Amino acid sequence: MASVNGEFRKLAAGYLFPEIKRRVNEWKALHPGVSVLSLGIGNTTEALSPAVVAAIKERAELLAHRETYTGYGDEQGEPTLREALSGYYKTLGVHLQPDEFFISDGAKADAANIQQLFDSHSVVAVQDPAYPVYVDSNVVAGRAGTYSQQEERYTNLVYLPCVEEKGFIPAVPARHVDLIYLCNPNNPTGAVATKSQLKDFVDYALEHKAVIIYDAAYSEYISDPNLPRSIYEISGAELCAIEINSFSKFSGFTGVRLGWTIVPKSLGCTDSAPGELHRMWFRRQSTFFNGASNLAQSGGLAALHGDGLAQSRSLVAYYKENARIIRQGLQAVGLTVHGGTDSPYVWTRVPKGMGSWEFFDLLLDQCHVVVTPGAGFGPSGEGYVRVSSYGHKEDVEAAMASIRRNLRKEDLE
Amino acid sequence: MASVNGEFRKLAAGYLFPEIKRRVNEWKALHPGVSVLSLGIGNTTEALSPAVVAAIKERAELLAHRETYTGYGDEQGEPTLREALSGYYKTLGVHLQPDEFFISDGAKADAANIQQLFDSHSVVAVQDPAYPVYVDSNVVAGRAGTYSQQEERYTNLVYLPCVEEKGFIPAVPARHVDLIYLCNPNNPTGAVATKSQLKDFVDYALEHKAVIIYDAAYSEYISDPNLPRSIYEISGAELCAIEINSFSKFSGFTGVRLGWTIVPKSLGCTDSAPGELHRMWFRRQSTFFNGASNLAQSGGLAALHGDGLAQSRSLVAYYKENARIIRQGLQAVGLTVHGGTDSPYVWTRVPKGMGSWEFFDLLLDQCHVVVTPGAGFGPSGEGYVRVSSYGHKEDVEAAMASIRRNLRKEDLE
Repeated sequence: MASVNGEFRKLAAGYLFPEIKRRVNEWKALHPGVSVLSLGIGNTTEALSPAVVAAIKERAELLAHRETYTGYGDEQGEPTLREALSGYYKTLGVHLQPDEFFISDGAKADAANIQQLFDSHSVVAVQDPAYPVYVDSNVVAGRAGTYSQQEERYTNLVYLPCVEEKGFIPAVPARHVDLIYLCNPNNPTGAVATKSQLKDFVDYALEHKAVIIYDAAYSEYISDPNLPRSIYEISGAELCAIEINSFSKFSGFTGVRLGWTIVPKSLGCTDSAPGELHRMWFRRQSTFFNGASNLAQSGGLAALHGDGLAQSRSLVAYYKENARIIRQGLQAVGLTVHGGTDSPYVWTRVPKGMGSWEFFDLLLDQCHVVVTPGAGFGPSGEGYVRVSSYGHKEDVEAAMASIRRNLRKEDLE
Repeated sequence: MASVNGEFRKLAAGYLFPEIKRRVNEWKALHPGVSVLSLGIGNTTEALSPAVVAAIKERAELLAHRETYTGYGDEQGEPTLREALSGYYKTLGVHLQPDEFFISDGAKADAANIQQLFDSHSVVAVQDPAYPVYVDSNVVAGRAGTYSQQEERYTNLVYLPCVEEKGFIPAVPARHVDLIYLCNPNNPTGAVATKSQLKDFVDYALEHKAVIIYDAAYSEYISDPNLPRSIYEISGAELCAIEINSFSKFSGFTGVRLGWTIVPKSLGCTDSAPGELHRMWFRRQSTFFNGASNLAQSGGLAALHGDGLAQSRSLVAYYKENARIIRQGLQAVGLTVHGGTDSPYVWTRVPKGMGSWEFFDLLLDQCHVVVTPGAGFGPSGEGYVRVSSYGHKEDVEAAMASIRRNLRKEDLE
């Protein structure tokens, strides 16, 4: 008499992005022939760089000959790639051994799976708003309690409000928590924490023997040299933080799939000596995973140096220019914007008295532009929409022109 | 005060294959310059087929241009590949909709993650011996109880002994269980169940409202037209079984990473109407996964028809010829062998009075041949070693020659 994992039934709604897709498809069906401009999902649109493509083809060619063919690689990733990442972090002044890097098929899977390392009764804190995966993975694991429609939150999660007055950087938890998810640069708000703000969290974690799960998937979008790009730039973080990162937004690998997670050997927690969590993640990845695609790993290696690195940085610059256009375009119609300077996301306040799904519908209906409703990221996301810079520049410009042309003045008041 | 998931500490030992690697590396360090022939890990060694390589390169080229670039795909896989798989199953007389197929980065991850759909108190039955992932994933999820060194088993798992007298096909559980893992053709024994033997399990599952998790990763190695290649060839299985499969052993994708899992919409269980498990797996994959690499998916599509399919079948035939050589070679020195006819694995009885790790050490030390100790797959694996046909034909021949030359007669008595 098999019974299902009832925690799945506690998931509040469909995963956000499929829900958006559903609404857009519904709208399209009602308006055949009308084209829609998407600044919704953070999905890359520009070509892979030539160096990366060459490396992938070269690897495919190596696999075409038995002398150079390789089958299963290490579950933790190819040594050359782990070494290259270790070297890359050195340029940030961060010293980590290659075997502290675990190559994966992307940051989303790691962000969802990392909670498996911790006790099922751990108290989990999330930024509010936050990328839905942190919440949903903990719901399925039974740590979130039940969803209260009235309070728009799960009963057992600790929400760290990210509010406009504080530049969307949350304060450390007022109560004790065990795990803290931090996304920096933040998805969805586009806010970036200073070293001093991150240090508050590291200090909190050290004091409470908590563990920070630090999602740095957008770190390459930081231009300001004073802003930290890795949590390990903060002294003590190697004792209390796991960092997750990805080639998706850095090198356009959203479909190619490649990421990494750093579990330092010095990381410990209440009932676990330094080293055990590192070994546990090794064991977890050896058992539940079988390595990232070797084709993707060759591509990732090429993205980390020489032409590949320069081309990856051009891709980032391209999307950052889009973000600038979006900020300017939205400000020109009188909207208040945040983020989008060291981040690909422009967090936009919706017109007074309007809900974020309402503004989503209005932009879709009047301007044929898709954005992401802030409420989909948590209760404090209400009142905002996320505008993504992932798109062709001409489409971003067209979207801004359409908003300028079609958004009625009375809607903004 | 973060605490770790203590279930990890219940894992009996290192994952089997890293443990073998460790022993082999230790031996190599003591014997520099001596080369070792590996028939241990089931790791493919022959080149990817030309059609697959061409498709991968073609996809890489599409990604090199913004007009044909694609980012995130559906988490469940590209529609073309799901349709091709649905079509492929039709050739077996199995009718499944494309959206009942969930494309993944490989069978191992799916086999490890599928248990997440079920209640944490589910009673789990595994074949004994079995591929370690079924046991280990349930240990981490807390369903296995504790490991008893004396009994060489977990207290809460139900072991279904696969014994020589019954052709290594287990009887249905004598008691009630909720989940049953079946691997067919079996890893490690190489045994293949008949339709009638599978029907016993389907009947049991229907009677007990249990769910069968059916790992068919080696189904392409079945030549006998009377043996079932999918559990859905058994009527009623669509109500009680999930099937997992992979391109790894079919098309040499061990490093490229691509697999699929079928969760039929008609599947139900005790407290869940047909359809819910299908939707839950959809939600699970949307939250914990972000799709298989698009490069791998293009390769997989090419492997399913025309030249690609013919070339994949040649690869399978190559390894099956190796299996024949292994069977013949081991029989020639007086060993008793099973499997290896509709499977890549030859299950070999170790000489009387010897343990399977002991025979592993002996083959390594005397013959420089690596095999896999049966005890690593479960208590009933003791007394056997798994000899894998994955290797270059000349290496397999050399291994057999070395065994013939170096295995001392007195060791076999």
